[in-house]
Amino acid sequence: MILRIDRWQTELPPPSTPDPAGAATVQELMGGKFGEMSTLMNYTFQSFNYRFRQGTRPFYDLIANIAAEEYGHIELVAATINTMLTGVDIRDVESEAYKHHYNFGGKGALPADSHGTPWTGDYVHSSGDLVEDLTHNYFLETGARSGKLRVYEMCDHPAARALTGYLLVRGGVHQVAYARALEKLTGADMSKLFPSPRIPTAKIPECQPHIEAGEHKKLYRFSPEDYREVIAVFNGPHPETGEDLEVVDHAPEGFPPQDLPPETDVFAPDYAPEEIAEIAQKLRKAAGLPDKVTGIVANDDDGLVSKVKDKLS
Amino acid sequence: MILRIDRWQTELPPPSTPDPAGAATVQELMGGKFGEMSTLMNYTFQSFNYRFRQGTRPFYDLIANIAAEEYGHIELVAATINTMLTGVDIRDVESEAYKHHYNFGGKGALPADSHGTPWTGDYVHSSGDLVEDLTHNYFLETGARSGKLRVYEMCDHPAARALTGYLLVRGGVHQVAYARALEKLTGADMSKLFPSPRIPTAKIPECQPHIEAGEHKKLYRFSPEDYREVIAVFNGPHPETGEDLEVVDHAPEGFPPQDLPPETDVFAPDYAPEEIAEIAQKLRKAAGLPDKVTGIVANDDDGLVSKVKDKLS
Amino acid sequence: MILRIDRWQTELPPPSTPDPAGAATVQELMGGKFGEMSTLMNYTFQSFNYRFRQGTRPFYDLIANIAAEEYGHIELVAATINTMLTGVDIRDVESEAYKHHYNFGGKGALPADSHGTPWTGDYVHSSGDLVEDLTHNYFLETGARSGKLRVYEMCDHPAARALTGYLLVRGGVHQVAYARALEKLTGADMSKLFPSPRIPTAKIPECQPHIEAGEHKKLYRFSPEDYREVIAVFNGPHPETGEDLEVVDHAPEGFPPQDLPPETDVFAPDYAPEEIAEIAQKLRKAAGLPDKVTGIVANDDDGLVSKVKDKLS
Amino acid sequence: MILRIDRWQTELPPPSTPDPAGAATVQELMGGKFGEMSTLMNYTFQSFNYRFRQGTRPFYDLIANIAAEEYGHIELVAATINTMLTGVDIRDVESEAYKHHYNFGGKGALPADSHGTPWTGDYVHSSGDLVEDLTHNYFLETGARSGKLRVYEMCDHPAARALTGYLLVRGGVHQVAYARALEKLTGADMSKLFPSPRIPTAKIPECQPHIEAGEHKKLYRFSPEDYREVIAVFNGPHPETGEDLEVVDHAPEGFPPQDLPPETDVFAPDYAPEEIAEIAQKLRKAAGLPDKVTGIVANDDDGLVSKVKDKLS
Amino acid sequence: MILRIDRWQTELPPPSTPDPAGAATVQELMGGKFGEMSTLMNYTFQSFNYRFRQGTRPFYDLIANIAAEEYGHIELVAATINTMLTGVDIRDVESEAYKHHYNFGGKGALPADSHGTPWTGDYVHSSGDLVEDLTHNYFLETGARSGKLRVYEMCDHPAARALTGYLLVRGGVHQVAYARALEKLTGADMSKLFPSPRIPTAKIPECQPHIEAGEHKKLYRFSPEDYREVIAVFNGPHPETGEDLEVVDHAPEGFPPQDLPPETDVFAPDYAPEEIAEIAQKLRKAAGLPDKVTGIVANDDDGLVSKVKDKLS
Amino acid sequence: MILRIDRWQTELPPPSTPDPAGAATVQELMGGKFGEMSTLMNYTFQSFNYRFRQGTRPFYDLIANIAAEEYGHIELVAATINTMLTGVDIRDVESEAYKHHYNFGGKGALPADSHGTPWTGDYVHSSGDLVEDLTHNYFLETGARSGKLRVYEMCDHPAARALTGYLLVRGGVHQVAYARALEKLTGADMSKLFPSPRIPTAKIPECQPHIEAGEHKKLYRFSPEDYREVIAVFNGPHPETGEDLEVVDHAPEGFPPQDLPPETDVFAPDYAPEEIAEIAQKLRKAAGLPDKVTGIVANDDDGLVSKVKDKLS
Repeated sequence: MILRIDRWQTELPPPSTPDPAGAATVQELMGGKFGEMSTLMNYTFQSFNYRFRQGTRPFYDLIANIAAEEYGHIELVAATINTMLTGVDIRDVESEAYKHHYNFGGKGALPADSHGTPWTGDYVHSSGDLVEDLTHNYFLETGARSGKLRVYEMCDHPAARALTGYLLVRGGVHQVAYARALEKLTGADMSKLFPSPRIPTAKIPECQPHIEAGEHKKLYRFSPEDYREVIAVFNGPHPETGEDLEVVDHAPEGFPPQDLPPETDVFAPDYAPEEIAEIAQKLRKAAGLPDKVTGIVANDDDGLVSKVKDKLS
Repeated sequence: MILRIDRWQTELPPPSTPDPAGAATVQELMGGKFGEMSTLMNYTFQSFNYRFRQGTRPFYDLIANIAAEEYGHIELVAATINTMLTGVDIRDVESEAYKHHYNFGGKGALPADSHGTPWTGDYVHSSGDLVEDLTHNYFLETGARSGKLRVYEMCDHPAARALTGYLLVRGGVHQVAYARALEKLTGADMSKLFPSPRIPTAKIPECQPHIEAGEHKKLYRFSPEDYREVIAVFNGPHPETGEDLEVVDHAPEGFPPQDLPPETDVFAPDYAPEEIAEIAQKLRKAAGLPDKVTGIVANDDDGLVSKVKDKLS
Repeated sequence: MILRIDRWQTELPPPSTPDPAGAATVQELMGGKFGEMSTLMNYTFQSFNYRFRQGTRPFYDLIANIAAEEYGHIELVAATINTMLTGVDIRDVESEAYKHHYNFGGKGALPADSHGTPWTGDYVHSSGDLVEDLTHNYFLETGARSGKLRVYEMCDHPAARALTGYLLVRGGVHQVAYARALEKLTGADMSKLFPSPRIPTAKIPECQPHIEAGEHKKLYRFSPEDYREVIAVFNGPHPETGEDLEVVDHAPEGFPPQDLPPETDVFAPDYAPEEIAEIAQKLRKAAGLPDKVTGIVANDDDGLVSKVKDKLS
Repeated sequence: MILRIDRWQTELPPPSTPDPAGAATVQELMGGKFGEMSTLMNYTFQSFNYRFRQGTRPFYDLIANIAAEEYGHIELVAATINTMLTGVDIRDVESEAYKHHYNFGGKGALPADSHGTPWTGDYVHSSGDLVEDLTHNYFLETGARSGKLRVYEMCDHPAARALTGYLLVRGGVHQVAYARALEKLTGADMSKLFPSPRIPTAKIPECQPHIEAGEHKKLYRFSPEDYREVIAVFNGPHPETGEDLEVVDHAPEGFPPQDLPPETDVFAPDYAPEEIAEIAQKLRKAAGLPDKVTGIVANDDDGLVSKVKDKLS
Repeated sequence: MILRIDRWQTELPPPSTPDPAGAATVQELMGGKFGEMSTLMNYTFQSFNYRFRQGTRPFYDLIANIAAEEYGHIELVAATINTMLTGVDIRDVESEAYKHHYNFGGKGALPADSHGTPWTGDYVHSSGDLVEDLTHNYFLETGARSGKLRVYEMCDHPAARALTGYLLVRGGVHQVAYARALEKLTGADMSKLFPSPRIPTAKIPECQPHIEAGEHKKLYRFSPEDYREVIAVFNGPHPETGEDLEVVDHAPEGFPPQDLPPETDVFAPDYAPEEIAEIAQKLRKAAGLPDKVTGIVANDDDGLVSKVKDKLS
Repeated sequence: MILRIDRWQTELPPPSTPDPAGAATVQELMGGKFGEMSTLMNYTFQSFNYRFRQGTRPFYDLIANIAAEEYGHIELVAATINTMLTGVDIRDVESEAYKHHYNFGGKGALPADSHGTPWTGDYVHSSGDLVEDLTHNYFLETGARSGKLRVYEMCDHPAARALTGYLLVRGGVHQVAYARALEKLTGADMSKLFPSPRIPTAKIPECQPHIEAGEHKKLYRFSPEDYREVIAVFNGPHPETGEDLEVVDHAPEGFPPQDLPPETDVFAPDYAPEEIAEIAQKLRKAAGLPDKVTGIVANDDDGLVSKVKDKLS
């Protein structure tokens, strides 16, 4: 089971120029074959189905723990898409191909790829055979890295760039982790396969802050008590830089999410959101909650709620 | 983001008589339109895409928090399927229709329904419109309850019964929660719609222990710090029993999972799992981990690992 | 079984400025999850599968009768798309995403959504459980209303506006009907859930003529002899206006359809349609049919056929 | 638009021995590529999209009118499946592959094929090109005839045999109709292509009563006023028998449908259907309906409703 | 089994102006329902599944041999798409709908249609019934011809025009072949069905060179030794021109393919292709291969490789 | 383009006991994600899309040449399924789940997996990035080997065993080839990853004859003139045995295929195949073909055709 924490693993910029076509491109990183839904669900199912955990714990812990981090990645991709869709005027996007963002969803991320094709469980490989599943995971991260690189190239919206800069670094860690697990199991040396695709992450400007923070060599432990045995696999030199790989014994602190404004032309969250706000306020009072909303968001310091209400009224 | 905890929300029995056809039936609760993948992903995407959170926090918190619980449900369904598949001899299942459990997966749960059709993002409804999404969620829980009732009838394997007994109670709580949210938002009174389908959970023996423990009226808070405002929505009388609904300010304690044995005819985790165990043990030692595996499982007290090794050698 | 009548349930304008992107948007109302194929097929299958009809006739009659009306809705959506595609020059639409309108179909409506994804039987919910199916139908109409509202916003082509104005009113009647059926069965009061999405139909100009004609409170009986017991369910006050709901004991009179002109660049109905016309005329004569075509269309008064022939020759 | 008539185009036997595997086989005739959903929707969309109707009316009338008959065919296939599923005990069908009949549907027909794959709009061919569409339709009827022949061979349940016996005859008429339309348009002579597959319908016992009634050479007109010009195409000798083809200027009279009993283990229509019956009776009374149910069913003469109630109480 | 020959069945022009939207349109001819994947796989499976070959050899040989030619057609469609995508700058195509060409594929053809929907085995008809399969094939070629005509109209890129000009002629031969096979089997006369769609290929300028070369009446034998009995079916007058059909007792000579340049923004074949070239050169040398590359391509005469290297360095 | 040769790459036994459930299992090797359609189409598309061939020829030649071999593999899988289905009585298979073999296909292989789900272009990975595509191919062969091992275990029908015994050996060669290509490109040493799954092929009895013939270390060149540069990559020691890898400069000789008998209950090739045989014989004569059929099949020595005719008459 999980505990959920309302924080983002990295910072994303607030909405700026809407970018409907870019948001469609970024959907590939959500629901495409190599999107974050795929990494999340592959590792999640592999961990659920993992047999003989006690006998082979370090490998189980590795997969289960990376699965936990991936949840945060689908959250980031969704946030990026939502940011890019904020402010789109649906009367102006007739020629935009990704119509589901407007006539089906509500300017929100969908579990679908850049053509609108839904993510499917068909993308999950959970064979039960450990070497096979790890081989798959190494390949999946390779394909995912490729996808991120291309979306990076195609979209220059600041949110898309912040997203891909971060995910390239973190995906790279997972790619290393699965290769290392294979090496530990078989004795092979896969280091020279890196980087794959063969462009070093270090050449991408938006990756720099994360590399400087050492994010390219750290595996966080996303659990209060479990997955302690990842250290038995995730160690040794980083295949590209030679630096020591490192297990961080807790989750990253994270960043408060942006609270995105209502989009009334798609009724999100309503045609008249201020009415819901009013109802919410009454319910909160009746429940004895404090006057100030308990949720923490990045853009709360100067009263988004009242501003939105003002703007709406 | 999430923290993952290696515990089950309810207890499931250890493997007994293998039940390949039953395992196929239970897949509907995983990857069917009304399976737990659907409840998980619907609420997850709705929470990611939720706009104007600060202004309408109690509703956001409700959806986001229930999403977190659902993760534990896909885990339970997977565990049930894996339990039922344990011990199946793949030379004996030629006439079993669900071939993917053997020639594609490795006697493990798949993100697919009872016919093997993969779960798809098409099952996610995230319109952005709060009343619409809540209406959807109420319906989804109704359909999900119906599916659980039928799987309960079709399968008398102890694991399937334990699973459905538990999920019927917890799904019922979510059904109530979404109805209540709609009532709070609109002023409607939906209580008389319960139970739906119109058979009281109380008539199902396997639900009794959970009802006695009050699980039918509690909403757990699955977060260290967030989603505190669920109490503003989840309150008032239970529509069926009239008891007060209750928010529990933490996650349930949970139960250690069963560690399921290797299945070598599908190479899960290997043709010769004891070899992986040996490698793992060396890696653990090298990493300074204690001799005893750190993972906690239900069936660890008398040495599964050594027994499995014995049996395999 | 059915009798088919070559009339439209509402008037649509003749072709004007072609609108290929708008036609793609309107496809969502045809083959999207909440499109008219879905409403038609959900109620049709529910009526086919309805058990114990004699014991519970009013509910059967309601579902079966609404199913019949929905057939007219897919006809209207198709007509709208065809109207919007009339006159498109396929050499000019290279950048249009919805290529199937030209390289697969013949400037005609497809049973697919706004991305070109085909409608699927997966969208049909026919559980057999009456309360569950009605709950589904209420939700489906809610989602459908939401889709229509958004397509209304996205498309200002006169045909799209005429279509959505009409369908919003009629869909609203079905939403009321299913809620009322649930109320009758359970005793719940769902009136305050209306309108959902929470924008009154009365605010939409294109709905006005239909509201003025009382179309928002009438249920037509689409059968020569059957479905008489709908009156046992469809009665009482309209949840929004308080007016009495009303069963009209026959189908609406309808309007002659537009006969859309040939589109020779996609060979619809042929590269040289006048040749088919000539053949048809000979066949008609040989069969003893009158000189004047027996079909009645909206645009027949001043000789479309001869005009088209003239234009083509 | 349509008027719906609650009668079947042919008689089907009442439920007898349940046949779950046979019901799965018959699903192919519903939602398979060559099932009745396909014939219905192909001709329906082709008629909606038909351009230049006035100039080429006989061909439009032919397609539109056959589309109308096909609606009655999906109804018959559904009724057959429902009949075969009546009385199945869902505790006994664990090894049955078609689980959706029990854990998703409620012992009811689904818009899916014999593997449970949903019917899809992808099966519709509506190119706008008349010769192409007619060629398609001729092929579709050929494939459909092939499917019916095989289901006939595979299932000896009386309902399946009655269904396929009827549909083979009626499908044969449509196959002839489309070939004749092509012949009229092009001058080709396709008669020698019949029968296709090359087994005469006359060899199939269950077809005999319908052949004796002349059903193999009649095209009914399924409309109060429209489609009168089919006679300009559907004429001349039947390609197999040489008899004159014949247009019947009205719909067939049809037969009252069987009212199938409740199946409470799947809650169809409820866990306690007698409660719904009671509610229905009150609503009927309140609406001024006569004591006796107005619906006409085949099995009504000796009080199904009261018998069911008795059995249930 | 097959022998593969690195030559194209017709000449295609080298890359010129990139045409991303046109490339998307041409995808329909690859992975659409009537694309070349469909013709290839239909005939391939029909030939694999063909029973009683010795007894009915000429028909088997016809289908198997046409299947072999179709392989060359998917190759040509791929080459066309790749040509049209060459030189696209992925930073400039944000508004292009077919994102998979850039964020999933590498400016390469995909087995998908013009919306990006993957080709599926569902498009294959292999009933085993010879007359039925031939009827299907005749229809399939009719639909395929229609698709090519429309893509021809929509795309004026020289590669698309060269492709469709060629495929229209060759597809026409297959359409004739299957009709002739049906005629031989049944005695029907289908000649007057041609051309279908009813525009003579002779009216399309890009078809002229191929018609002048007699390609519209020749069936090549794509095998060193097999399929000699096609001559028993493919003979008699061409239905449109009356010329004698002709079997050519070998495959066409073909044309060397264009070697398309690297596209480094999608890493095809790499971020730094010259590095791979260097490695390849070393491997070639070590294997004793001659200095000059053994592969023969259309654009090799003035040293593409060195030019590319120059351009890249 | 290709030349097709009517020979099998390995021998398969003639039909014996029909095995409908086994035939369904084997479908996974045809149309499953890791079936031979996938290996064929992945390498085919990668070769079509390969850019900069002249600069990096050995890698292109490797992929293109393996693609050619894979065609022979789908042929073998089809032949196996057809063999296992020969003699099935369709009146006896009501409880068999794979109904499409009888009510859709004609006891013939379908491009679908073991649940009947069609193969899809979604299974093709053609990123253009050479290292990524090779990594994919190495993984794909790993998954494919896993699938073959499991089908081997599940099916003991002689045809299934002969098939999997052969494919395991040949698939192993391709797995080695792609690993070697990666090693050549990057300098990594992947040898210790073999075997994967970690069971040596040498332990499987049905692989022995092929290993003894050295088939595990040979790469055939499937082209009259092309793909000569594979030798630059496919060399060095076999990772498991240390033997030298070897390129055979031509295709294997192959074996004449079995001609499978008609199955008249599914009309394959007809209800009365002897009638087609008679027509064929007349056509052959008219075309001047020799009396004896020119096709060469394994079971021709004592007159299958006449025997079949006898049996049928």
